[in-house]
Amino acid sequence: MATKVTKIGVLTSGGDSPGMNAAIRAVVRTGIYHELEVYGVMRGYSGMIDDDIFRMESRSVANIIQRGGTILKCARSDEFREPAGRAKAYENLKKRGIDALVVIGGDGSFKGAQKFSNEFDIPCIGLPGTIDKDIAGTDFTIGFDTAVNTAVEAIDKIRDTADAHDRLFVVEVMGRDAGYIALHSGIATGAENILIPETKTNIDELIASLGEKEKRRKLVNLVVVAEGDEFGGGNEIARIVKKRLPNIDTRVCILGHIQRGGAPTCLDRLIASRMGYHAVESLMQGRYNVMVGIVNNKLHYTPLDHAIKAKQKLSNQWLKIVKILAS
Amino acid sequence: MATKVTKIGVLTSGGDSPGMNAAIRAVVRTGIYHELEVYGVMRGYSGMIDDDIFRMESRSVANIIQRGGTILKCARSDEFREPAGRAKAYENLKKRGIDALVVIGGDGSFKGAQKFSNEFDIPCIGLPGTIDKDIAGTDFTIGFDTAVNTAVEAIDKIRDTADAHDRLFVVEVMGRDAGYIALHSGIATGAENILIPETKTNIDELIASLGEKEKRRKLVNLVVVAEGDEFGGGNEIARIVKKRLPNIDTRVCILGHIQRGGAPTCLDRLIASRMGYHAVESLMQGRYNVMVGIVNNKLHYTPLDHAIKAKQKLSNQWLKIVKILAS
Amino acid sequence: MATKVTKIGVLTSGGDSPGMNAAIRAVVRTGIYHELEVYGVMRGYSGMIDDDIFRMESRSVANIIQRGGTILKCARSDEFREPAGRAKAYENLKKRGIDALVVIGGDGSFKGAQKFSNEFDIPCIGLPGTIDKDIAGTDFTIGFDTAVNTAVEAIDKIRDTADAHDRLFVVEVMGRDAGYIALHSGIATGAENILIPETKTNIDELIASLGEKEKRRKLVNLVVVAEGDEFGGGNEIARIVKKRLPNIDTRVCILGHIQRGGAPTCLDRLIASRMGYHAVESLMQGRYNVMVGIVNNKLHYTPLDHAIKAKQKLSNQWLKIVKILAS
Amino acid sequence: MATKVTKIGVLTSGGDSPGMNAAIRAVVRTGIYHELEVYGVMRGYSGMIDDDIFRMESRSVANIIQRGGTILKCARSDEFREPAGRAKAYENLKKRGIDALVVIGGDGSFKGAQKFSNEFDIPCIGLPGTIDKDIAGTDFTIGFDTAVNTAVEAIDKIRDTADAHDRLFVVEVMGRDAGYIALHSGIATGAENILIPETKTNIDELIASLGEKEKRRKLVNLVVVAEGDEFGGGNEIARIVKKRLPNIDTRVCILGHIQRGGAPTCLDRLIASRMGYHAVESLMQGRYNVMVGIVNNKLHYTPLDHAIKAKQKLSNQWLKIVKILAS
Repeated sequence: MATKVTKIGVLTSGGDSPGMNAAIRAVVRTGIYHELEVYGVMRGYSGMIDDDIFRMESRSVANIIQRGGTILKCARSDEFREPAGRAKAYENLKKRGIDALVVIGGDGSFKGAQKFSNEFDIPCIGLPGTIDKDIAGTDFTIGFDTAVNTAVEAIDKIRDTADAHDRLFVVEVMGRDAGYIALHSGIATGAENILIPETKTNIDELIASLGEKEKRRKLVNLVVVAEGDEFGGGNEIARIVKKRLPNIDTRVCILGHIQRGGAPTCLDRLIASRMGYHAVESLMQGRYNVMVGIVNNKLHYTPLDHAIKAKQKLSNQWLKIVKILAS
Repeated sequence: MATKVTKIGVLTSGGDSPGMNAAIRAVVRTGIYHELEVYGVMRGYSGMIDDDIFRMESRSVANIIQRGGTILKCARSDEFREPAGRAKAYENLKKRGIDALVVIGGDGSFKGAQKFSNEFDIPCIGLPGTIDKDIAGTDFTIGFDTAVNTAVEAIDKIRDTADAHDRLFVVEVMGRDAGYIALHSGIATGAENILIPETKTNIDELIASLGEKEKRRKLVNLVVVAEGDEFGGGNEIARIVKKRLPNIDTRVCILGHIQRGGAPTCLDRLIASRMGYHAVESLMQGRYNVMVGIVNNKLHYTPLDHAIKAKQKLSNQWLKIVKILAS
Repeated sequence: MATKVTKIGVLTSGGDSPGMNAAIRAVVRTGIYHELEVYGVMRGYSGMIDDDIFRMESRSVANIIQRGGTILKCARSDEFREPAGRAKAYENLKKRGIDALVVIGGDGSFKGAQKFSNEFDIPCIGLPGTIDKDIAGTDFTIGFDTAVNTAVEAIDKIRDTADAHDRLFVVEVMGRDAGYIALHSGIATGAENILIPETKTNIDELIASLGEKEKRRKLVNLVVVAEGDEFGGGNEIARIVKKRLPNIDTRVCILGHIQRGGAPTCLDRLIASRMGYHAVESLMQGRYNVMVGIVNNKLHYTPLDHAIKAKQKLSNQWLKIVKILAS
Repeated sequence: MATKVTKIGVLTSGGDSPGMNAAIRAVVRTGIYHELEVYGVMRGYSGMIDDDIFRMESRSVANIIQRGGTILKCARSDEFREPAGRAKAYENLKKRGIDALVVIGGDGSFKGAQKFSNEFDIPCIGLPGTIDKDIAGTDFTIGFDTAVNTAVEAIDKIRDTADAHDRLFVVEVMGRDAGYIALHSGIATGAENILIPETKTNIDELIASLGEKEKRRKLVNLVVVAEGDEFGGGNEIARIVKKRLPNIDTRVCILGHIQRGGAPTCLDRLIASRMGYHAVESLMQGRYNVMVGIVNNKLHYTPLDHAIKAKQKLSNQWLKIVKILAS
């Protein structure tokens, strides 16, 4: 890989997240600024295997910075996990002379990129695109801020009706392995209890706390649950609460896929633009097979091998604050 | 009831809907304009029975026109269905001299009002407050426009991620007996299929239509289902689709209670203000035990007895348009 | 024009309004359903003159129902006012065999269409696309509901800061000849005064009313002014207020072009879809040179000649309600 | 000040910003958790002088975390700049036994607090509440994230109509001394040019850049200007552009006070909650006359004397990125 990068491919992989389009735009335009040819790969590694690859110009990314979803679509590819699939993908890059890749996605996508790079000497850059914010080596992931604001707006609406009826709502937000969305949206909406995968959920404590609030007629009760909580998400929590506190009028709401879409927030567009710019800069400088992250507002490069799912070191302080502020 | 109205009570009953606060504001201020005393009754008929009634001034309703929910809270009251409950409620009105009621709610609340009025000679006015828009005698109900726009915004977000992954989403919206929210939000989001209680859902036709679209790779597929569809809502429809079309990547989203909350739209604030104003005007003119509605942009008064749940005469034309526009 | 329509052109003309894309989508897909060829004309009549015309398929209008603006762009064309311009435009239609036009725009655009149709025997259909809602022959125009909701959301935000500082805000909304946006947004946000072109603005009365409120320390004061008010819009009103009531802390806010953009509301998408569908149906049935409108929820066809700017018969009742509710 | 804090006052001062209510809520509830009495002071230092002070309970701050504005209202006080005013304010605290203050506001408010504390030995804590983000000693200020997202959403709408008409829009955002809102919202909306007070605006360069884009028909042009730019804001820039590039169809939009209101974003609610909590904790620990900030995601305490308006060290990198990404 001594030779200079001249043609790059860009793709979005894994689950989509708001801000991916802003990142694509930044990669394309920074590439063109450096006089590279830029190619869009459709549907992640699937499009690389199926040869669904097209040349992108500056105008290809006009008017997309504000759009949710991804114009390159994304998918998970089983075939890319097999050597034969990766070989096919490589042939499709090679015939166009594409000599570097920018992969926007999560830790699984980065592992694939690293393996591909090892096998075919294609330098890769990873950009963390996931609403779950559960990737080591960066304070921000593209899409988290939008997803958590979508959750907050939805819970604000639920609070209106909860307040009108003095009801308890159990709201399930996304986060299979990580409780960030639950923690942030729960604090921001004044939830009384927040249940996340990172901590052991003490159901007796939850019941006791809700029962105590019922007694002193604290009116609105919101419990925010991450879908990955070990008790099994909103439906299960609601079931237990209804059984043990039958006098409380309890409802459940699963926010679901609305959290993945929508126009990205300012912050998500900014970090996506910044990361996309530096993805190309990094390739130009010969730094590759890294994920571009931001730590303490400075660029931070993590080898793709190490850009794994990170358990949050859940601040005990936050959990204490939640209890005090919702009292 | 020959005597003039001098003190009125206002309450919100049944399920809450966005715009109820705008209606309360209009009732209070129009009442004060006519030099009436106005009393707020908390939690619908429950508060009337429990004597949770308070005097309202012009400032009591300041800065609420834009708020979701209802400052008077609402509830369903079993006790009010019993003569003893209604007698207790009457005593609480009587001791304050309250001689008329404005009830904001649905058809069930109107039935209660009519019965109460028959028994105790308290003139009542009903205002249609329900997100379901399923009340005879009015083109608009307070809250429908907000609820359907909330559904549309949510489905727009779902479309972003559906499009990114070429997935089929089955989205369930509210509407236990009526398909208005499903029909309007489905048309507005370009849904391919809309399943509502008013029509017989032909599941074979649905499967055939989705299967045909899968073949020609039509990319985004949205099916919008009213919760009251006879097939059992979103989960059940998704289950059937997954079973019969296993190659389609199908997800389900239940929008749930977010549809009840949020700042009311301009239209809901307007009709709520207009109806609230005319509720009091109507009492002043001696027209009572009617629901104030709007038909063809004109005021329309329906005896409370007749303000029942209305099946929409579902326009076959709309269903034809849906098919053509989503093709 | 005895012959059957086989190829239609569609264009957006005049000022853009949210929902135009939904109308284009409906025209295209209904046209294709009837096995017509459909052509998009860019930038209104300008594109017809410059031959900027392209074939549209069903996919050309995928994923646009929720987008603000217009994919066909729009413009005002001086050249089309000249016979030479129209002749050139006609040649460009003729060489493709386009034998009918759907024009989405305002009264000026309809006049052009009528003239063009008279000269070249091209049947035209008009769809009312304007945020100002000032067209005779329809209760709805495409874009009004979105614009007024945008204004309401903006004024809600202004109210937050007005309330925090006990300030008077003069907010100017769009409406050069019509006060609909001002009237509806003003009522919906609880504005104390609403100044519109349809009524003579009595500045002394305004000053007296504000001065009286200042005395009894009524806290938030909102004055909503249509840009076309005869006193010259928000800046001028604010100047007068500051001069005559110097103790009131007065600010001005011109909402401006944000009112033209944004995702259309459910209602705007619905009426745009319905009107777009019936534009083509109408051509198929041989009814042309009419504007498709909706009156009392029924289709209503107005000869293009008569689809002029309509002064609203401003309900005195509404102005009375405004005063009572804001007291 | 050896004695322990037992009663605290909380006030919001200067310009309001979204998230102030979340901060008040956190101060009140953390105070009550520590068994302090908490008093709300209305309208900043004015209320302290006018004795507009009231006891707050946990319920006083229920259901406000999501509200824009400030329930304590805010104001600028000339009287507090005079010794006599401050003495009067002190008397009002003293008679209630209030022995500490939390001041939510900007650098001017902190200077007043410091002076007051010096004179009367009342420990004070400052929380940075300003949409301008121009305070040294913190990465975040309460309200900035909301304001910049409001600007972004507004500019997105403007882009819709700009795109439909191929127009140039000059958009003025808030920021009298600081260009943060302009810079962030400009990048996030893909503005071609961003004019801020921190850099010398080269009007010839701007004209040249716009002229060049006009030549190659780059379609949408957005120029975002901070109100404090040395050329005089949006109107002045638009005037110059119209004069020197008369062929460009140029419009101006002053976003104004909508940027101050609205429900706070998740981030603003989070930092406000965190800062509010630590304001009280800090007092309990005997650390006072400091502003609570957050730097690199850690708490950071700045002596009130030093919490001055900070010029941003405007990253040249960002300005370079802007040029590349908007090309």
